[in-house]
Amino acid sequence: MKIILTLSALIVSGVSWAAGKPAPAPNGIELPTYYKNWRVIGVSHRDDKQSMRVIVGNDTAVEAARTGDTHPWPDGSILGKLAWKDQVHPHWQPATVPGEFMHAEFMIKDSSKYAKTRGWGFARWVGMEQKPYGKDESFVQECLACHDQVKNDDSVFTHPAPLP
Amino acid sequence: MKIILTLSALIVSGVSWAAGKPAPAPNGIELPTYYKNWRVIGVSHRDDKQSMRVIVGNDTAVEAARTGDTHPWPDGSILGKLAWKDQVHPHWQPATVPGEFMHAEFMIKDSSKYAKTRGWGFARWVGMEQKPYGKDESFVQECLACHDQVKNDDSVFTHPAPLP
Repeated sequence: MKIILTLSALIVSGVSWAAGKPAPAPNGIELPTYYKNWRVIGVSHRDDKQSMRVIVGNDTAVEAARTGDTHPWPDGSILGKLAWKDQVHPHWQPATVPGEFMHAEFMIKDSSKYAKTRGWGFARWVGMEQKPYGKDESFVQECLACHDQVKNDDSVFTHPAPLP
Repeated sequence: MKIILTLSALIVSGVSWAAGKPAPAPNGIELPTYYKNWRVIGVSHRDDKQSMRVIVGNDTAVEAARTGDTHPWPDGSILGKLAWKDQVHPHWQPATVPGEFMHAEFMIKDSSKYAKTRGWGFARWVGMEQKPYGKDESFVQECLACHDQVKNDDSVFTHPAPLP
């Protein structure tokens, strides 16, 4: 009886977890589970979008970034970009700090699986509710159109920030 | 003989590591060892210094940041700020990205040990060579003078960036 109850609890907890998990992107990519614990690769600010970002990576990507092995980035690398709207610091006006959370977006390197999109799988989840971006798989064309500007850098905007 | 050689190798490697370690700050604070692997708490841009930063923290600080337990930050928290000079992205002009590495600076919370400096130990290491900042212990007065503006936020400028 005790065993049955424990199993039921596990099943209920499993269902609840699945329900709380953000939906996958229209191309089937799932939100990486531990991205908020990934290490830093860089930061950026976009004047055109009045927003700021941190670029983080999974272990493969961070190792590549810190050893200069990014032309191309190795298969298995995942880059994550977290973006916030600009906000003036309430007590120090010359500083711009993160306001509203905009989105978390990812590039997953797999040169075979994503051969049609330059070796990268693209996905984005919008807002605090992490709603998948894009109506259907064609959203990826939007990603590619912009990343075309950096095709000579393996389609990646981020240059790892120098670190001591 | 094999054991002696191995021990010698360890000693030599230990000495070399100690010699390569940046000197402590004038107030005796040592550069935290693993700060480049810490998780993200926020980002910022300073218009007055044309520079951008990522704010990272040790486990105690990240836990506090993500549970809203920052008034005050708990003892044992260490906040690290890594700063780079602004640079225009070479292939996308509206983006500002990290240029030259400026410094890594830290605030270590210990309300007893650092009671005279509002509960925080301050330290900074400058440039890629990580030279300790300040001629003598009095450099801390410079830190305090600026952080006075945020004395109602436990003397911390950083508000943890919202995350889903």
